[in-house]
Amino acid sequence: MKISCNKTSLMNGINIVSKAVSAKSTMTNVQCILIEASLSDIRLIANDIEIGIETIIEGRIIEAGKIAIDAKFFSDIVRRLPDSEITIETNVNNQAIIHCERNETNIPGTSGDDFNYLPDVAKDKSITISQFTLKDVIQKTIFSISDQENTKIMTGELFEVNGDELRVISLDGHRISIRKVKLKESYEPMKVIVPGKTLSEMTKILNGGIEDEVTIYITDKHILFEFDQTKVVSRILEGEFYKIDQMLTNDYETKFTINKSDFVSSIDRASLFIKESDKKPIILNIENSSMYMKIDSTLGSMNEELEINKEGKDIRIGFNPKFLMDALRAIDDENVDIYMINQKSPCYIRDVEENYIYLILPVSIVA
Amino acid sequence: MKISCNKTSLMNGINIVSKAVSAKSTMTNVQCILIEASLSDIRLIANDIEIGIETIIEGRIIEAGKIAIDAKFFSDIVRRLPDSEITIETNVNNQAIIHCERNETNIPGTSGDDFNYLPDVAKDKSITISQFTLKDVIQKTIFSISDQENTKIMTGELFEVNGDELRVISLDGHRISIRKVKLKESYEPMKVIVPGKTLSEMTKILNGGIEDEVTIYITDKHILFEFDQTKVVSRILEGEFYKIDQMLTNDYETKFTINKSDFVSSIDRASLFIKESDKKPIILNIENSSMYMKIDSTLGSMNEELEINKEGKDIRIGFNPKFLMDALRAIDDENVDIYMINQKSPCYIRDVEENYIYLILPVSIVA
Repeated sequence: MKISCNKTSLMNGINIVSKAVSAKSTMTNVQCILIEASLSDIRLIANDIEIGIETIIEGRIIEAGKIAIDAKFFSDIVRRLPDSEITIETNVNNQAIIHCERNETNIPGTSGDDFNYLPDVAKDKSITISQFTLKDVIQKTIFSISDQENTKIMTGELFEVNGDELRVISLDGHRISIRKVKLKESYEPMKVIVPGKTLSEMTKILNGGIEDEVTIYITDKHILFEFDQTKVVSRILEGEFYKIDQMLTNDYETKFTINKSDFVSSIDRASLFIKESDKKPIILNIENSSMYMKIDSTLGSMNEELEINKEGKDIRIGFNPKFLMDALRAIDDENVDIYMINQKSPCYIRDVEENYIYLILPVSIVA
Repeated sequence: MKISCNKTSLMNGINIVSKAVSAKSTMTNVQCILIEASLSDIRLIANDIEIGIETIIEGRIIEAGKIAIDAKFFSDIVRRLPDSEITIETNVNNQAIIHCERNETNIPGTSGDDFNYLPDVAKDKSITISQFTLKDVIQKTIFSISDQENTKIMTGELFEVNGDELRVISLDGHRISIRKVKLKESYEPMKVIVPGKTLSEMTKILNGGIEDEVTIYITDKHILFEFDQTKVVSRILEGEFYKIDQMLTNDYETKFTINKSDFVSSIDRASLFIKESDKKPIILNIENSSMYMKIDSTLGSMNEELEINKEGKDIRIGFNPKFLMDALRAIDDENVDIYMINQKSPCYIRDVEENYIYLILPVSIVA
């Protein structure tokens, strides 16, 4: 194989496929990038079995062929090369000889004959969405997936399409995050549970352009994202997702509106008083047109009054501050509406159109 | 005690004195900041015995007194408070009650009665230097101090004043860094070895202004830096420093000039091939008007040609790339002059005026 390409396009390609490189495995292939030059294009491929990524880079093919090289080392080397034309050539010992200006680097590789290519994914069912929207809905829900491998389904997010609406849901047993977005077209209903790891890597690869699109193909086993010159294939999580709609209610006893960034700052301060070992809740005392936030721990105590605009009953309720914080930080609105029923029922942070719903379970407090 | 001050000035003060807070010790006082309000000013003090810092902050003294509180926790709390007026008050239980807007925070403290104040330092011998220059000479020499506590003197830097010249020297057994700067006035000769830790904290506190001055007082036991509203006192290292001038020579067999940033980039690439375990040197082959840089390790190999402007003999010599890199990064010049004698003698990177001299020992290479 012999190819020539510029540093920027090679580095971009490496950065993209590196998201599917396993750092932990002892299997050589999953730590490698395959460079494959066919007659028509130059592809970089990485595949750690859970997620596989393939991207086409611009360049000149001088001789077709392929080589698999250690992803991290290759990336470290290319990053440090001058911003110039790079030639990569293989020799009979499966070494990659990299030329750039007056530098010649020689690194060992393997033939790539036993490399795991991306699985074929049938393109029967698909939806199209802007890169911006996909990245945005993931970032605003991903924090409430579970990291407990024993409830596998909770480690992923439900993507649910109904007509021209996409709903993305994640939950971890203490909270539920739901985001709804409109699609440009209408589709047959479909449901798929996508691993959190895949989604989290997707947010790093998507350029996030409003005008740039992603096409998503779904089968029984896989989800395929196609965008720009890149394909990302991931296994999906098998099983039935939780019946969310049965858990939701629009009933409430207390509703209040609060300035989001004031609330966030206040929770941030209160969080300092929480030690891993005692897990004290913060207590919100909602009284008339004020919310009193209070925390009391072995480290000290804090009290703060925040202005709110309230309807309904007064309430005193406890929360894990991290859960409130995660939800509030995922909301762009200046003011948020919060709905509560009682000390033991979930609280809801949601907008009028229900484009977002964040449900959070309270923590019991000593009266 | 009761004081009132604005958040910015309090936070600045905390950031300064926190550099003398010990993270590791189990002694409470060295992890604390003492807030002391006298009739005339509000001082923050921290002292981990090796280094002590005191700074005066602007504010209003409502009631004189003092309290010692955990530095890290206090800093975390103040950082998160609104950018507004902060009141700190103590109660009979030695708690600090902090008010800011509608937030009240209560944290435990101690009376501060057994707090270690800064030692008195006699102000007989002093020199004055700009903050910019002091910060600059430290940053350009500190990397070659030793971290070996068994050669204590090498863990500090020699500050040597002769007339209107200050020379700062550090060495670690493999290399020597020397910086020379002109002072505005002439002084009696003096010498002091300042602990590296103190100097490194100083670079973080000095604002680095060219017009802002630092006055340095020296005694047999201590060095005191006075600047802005801050005093930093440190123990000095006792003993005789190495006789550097005997180790230096202006003789050379090979002299070449090279573009500094090209050389740095090239060394950076070569460094990738070095594993902690085998410690291969990089080999520089200086031939006619080129330098060939070469490294060969179990990870692969690299060759690069760099343009140089040479006088004298050709030479082939090996180096630990980190030592070359550290010295080159401390030089602002676009091109540097490098002087070599033979494969086993130190190489020198120095400018014509000898405002900087970086001496580096080569590493033996197999012929």
